[in-house]
Amino acid sequence: MIKLYGSAESGHTFKVRLLLEVAALPYEYEEVDLRIDREARPEPFRSLAKYGEVPLLVHDGQPYVQSNAILLHLAQHTQAFGGETPERLARCREWLFWEANRIGTCLPHLRFGQRFDPQGYPPGVLEWMRTRFDADIARLDEELSDGRAFLLGDSPSIADCAICGYMFWPEQAGVSYPPQVTAWLERIRALPGWRHPYDMPGVIPF
Amino acid sequence: MIKLYGSAESGHTFKVRLLLEVAALPYEYEEVDLRIDREARPEPFRSLAKYGEVPLLVHDGQPYVQSNAILLHLAQHTQAFGGETPERLARCREWLFWEANRIGTCLPHLRFGQRFDPQGYPPGVLEWMRTRFDADIARLDEELSDGRAFLLGDSPSIADCAICGYMFWPEQAGVSYPPQVTAWLERIRALPGWRHPYDMPGVIPF
Repeated sequence: MIKLYGSAESGHTFKVRLLLEVAALPYEYEEVDLRIDREARPEPFRSLAKYGEVPLLVHDGQPYVQSNAILLHLAQHTQAFGGETPERLARCREWLFWEANRIGTCLPHLRFGQRFDPQGYPPGVLEWMRTRFDADIARLDEELSDGRAFLLGDSPSIADCAICGYMFWPEQAGVSYPPQVTAWLERIRALPGWRHPYDMPGVIPF
Repeated sequence: MIKLYGSAESGHTFKVRLLLEVAALPYEYEEVDLRIDREARPEPFRSLAKYGEVPLLVHDGQPYVQSNAILLHLAQHTQAFGGETPERLARCREWLFWEANRIGTCLPHLRFGQRFDPQGYPPGVLEWMRTRFDADIARLDEELSDGRAFLLGDSPSIADCAICGYMFWPEQAGVSYPPQVTAWLERIRALPGWRHPYDMPGVIPF
């Protein structure tokens, strides 16, 4: 029994939903309105997610937070993507931590700063985030330039789910993608179960 | 058979060494001079670490990169800290991704920008990093305020190794720590095997 609490506007939520949908894992979904103060968000979400952040996954009664940690949990404890080998899980971990520290930092800030909170970033910060994004997207493009379909080879993995998490809002972040990344995103879009974050069942975009 | 390639100046390297030393896992260490261009770093490091980054762990002939991914690998495939339960590993994963995205982003940048590359950060970026650090260290202090000795309870885990990775150079980063964090760092310092990053065997600080 899997229940996911998330938000239409959260790429971190989208990462997990993409896995659940593409892997066709049965789950319930509940939208959390992030415009409500953390302390005022409804129960049981508030008690289960200590810091009031989405996504929150509840699996067999246990709460799990941090999107990439949830992806690893689901990859190890379900048959998502057919069940991963230890070797593929090791490579997934590397990609997930690269994401958390690199493209999963700069790209969400570029989007948040331009779409939601222009006053929240002092001058220079978003420009610096853009130079980071340029470096990260170039590295991703180079990785994909050997002709593989997905990050770990012929079949998708949680590494693809994590790294594309914020990439379907390029207009909100003011970014564009190089050729190999564009083609990889097209292959993700073509996976059965894929939907745009704003078209997932039960979401309420701002 | 474990071999670690790292740098005295890398907190990411230190995270892994701290685990290896405190858990008393036998390993070899080789210092990599980060002042040499990535393409010119010596073999076999250059071939094994695709992007030329430290730390690189080679375990039974297989290369592993990304410090937090290495910590998870060692926790799952050795008897480090007595062998972790699935429940503790799930909590460790949450802490490790929080670190990668939060305090493991702002604190290294504060240090790097002040100690190594003041010209590399446009005006405003380090000040913004400081506001992020203030929020992250407050959250860590709040976490530790319930009296537990280490992040997961009475005994240390890879979560402690990851989150303290850059915290033993406060003077280089220009930061100080609140009371609960200070006491927790003292407990880490008291663990048999702990040494300051610059006092680890085989390191060559800049």
